[in-house]
Amino acid sequence: MNHPTDSLYDVIERRRDVRAEFTGSPVPDDVLQRVLGAAHRAPSVGMSQPWDFVLVRDPETRASFRDHVRTERASFAASLPPERRASFDRIKVEGICESSLGVVVTHSQTRGGPHVLGRHAIADAGLYSTVLAIQNLWLAATAEGLGLGWVSFYREDVLRQLLGIPADVRPVAWLCLGTVSHLETVPDLERHGWRARRPLADAIHEDTWQAREQDHA
Amino acid sequence: MNHPTDSLYDVIERRRDVRAEFTGSPVPDDVLQRVLGAAHRAPSVGMSQPWDFVLVRDPETRASFRDHVRTERASFAASLPPERRASFDRIKVEGICESSLGVVVTHSQTRGGPHVLGRHAIADAGLYSTVLAIQNLWLAATAEGLGLGWVSFYREDVLRQLLGIPADVRPVAWLCLGTVSHLETVPDLERHGWRARRPLADAIHEDTWQAREQDHA
Repeated sequence: MNHPTDSLYDVIERRRDVRAEFTGSPVPDDVLQRVLGAAHRAPSVGMSQPWDFVLVRDPETRASFRDHVRTERASFAASLPPERRASFDRIKVEGICESSLGVVVTHSQTRGGPHVLGRHAIADAGLYSTVLAIQNLWLAATAEGLGLGWVSFYREDVLRQLLGIPADVRPVAWLCLGTVSHLETVPDLERHGWRARRPLADAIHEDTWQAREQDHA
Repeated sequence: MNHPTDSLYDVIERRRDVRAEFTGSPVPDDVLQRVLGAAHRAPSVGMSQPWDFVLVRDPETRASFRDHVRTERASFAASLPPERRASFDRIKVEGICESSLGVVVTHSQTRGGPHVLGRHAIADAGLYSTVLAIQNLWLAATAEGLGLGWVSFYREDVLRQLLGIPADVRPVAWLCLGTVSHLETVPDLERHGWRARRPLADAIHEDTWQAREQDHA
């Protein structure tokens, strides 16, 4: 696995949050294993590796989840002022049925036993580990020429029930993963006028926090 | 930036959580900008880019944080059963003063205004974005030949006060970043017998959650 486009910075630059470009062809199993293997090599607090990956291919399960997401999308749309709503109407928020499969990433706070090294002062440190794994997964998918889109228009309990996830395990993401026609070069939300990107310099502070006007923008 | 070792999978494999290998030499500013730029190109819910980076070089601030971490380390050690404690005693948990600088990554839940696209159903989706940026930062540091170690033995309010971080901004990580003598090939916690890695196959489920014995181990 060493094609010309897998240098880290290049992959970071090409990575997109994909909704509309899925083609639905199957992902070869060796590719999927490499992508999940990249996620599984993420750092984790106390080496607890608190993540799991539920691979959802079943069309009925996916259609059912998509219907739920549609409802949540409508609920968000209804909360928007008219000018934001017009912009939002143009934006596709998921490719659940069009992607090759769903990868539901979950977090188990009980994994690692009662004494997780590095988690006693910050309970969320375990949850953070699970999210680090997602970014590895996302970048590996991009390096493999696949697309990935993180869906967050859902209620955790609905997804938990749909997949039989136990009460003490938290679904963190539904990732639409799959073959794509292409990756856009500009993020959807920027192309559709939802929001512009912030300059890096605005995010950097020296030694102490420096208050800036855009803190609440 | 295209040296032979920056292919994504290679970087993911080489990345370590560094404590003991820092040399303390300065990180050139162009390198630091590339590393922070990689973090800043992470995906974020509703393109909210809710992260900030406080670069902590001041020796007094670092010494003060290290003292606090020592206290928290002692408190965790006191909570352990004897056999775990002996293993923990061998483990270094931070390189705050030995690293080239600290990068404190913060999360602002107010960034992006009142209608963050994709966050209405899952409040933590913003926090997840900030953690995705940390993984980009970590991988970029590794690609640049630097080391990074995430310190989590601290109380968020103590760190907030130390750096003047406002009450509505959450410190998510203190990252020790810097030049290193080398990167270990096996994680510290595995080398010191704290915990072994879990096979990838145990983390994969098909279509629905499959209960396994190691769920609570």
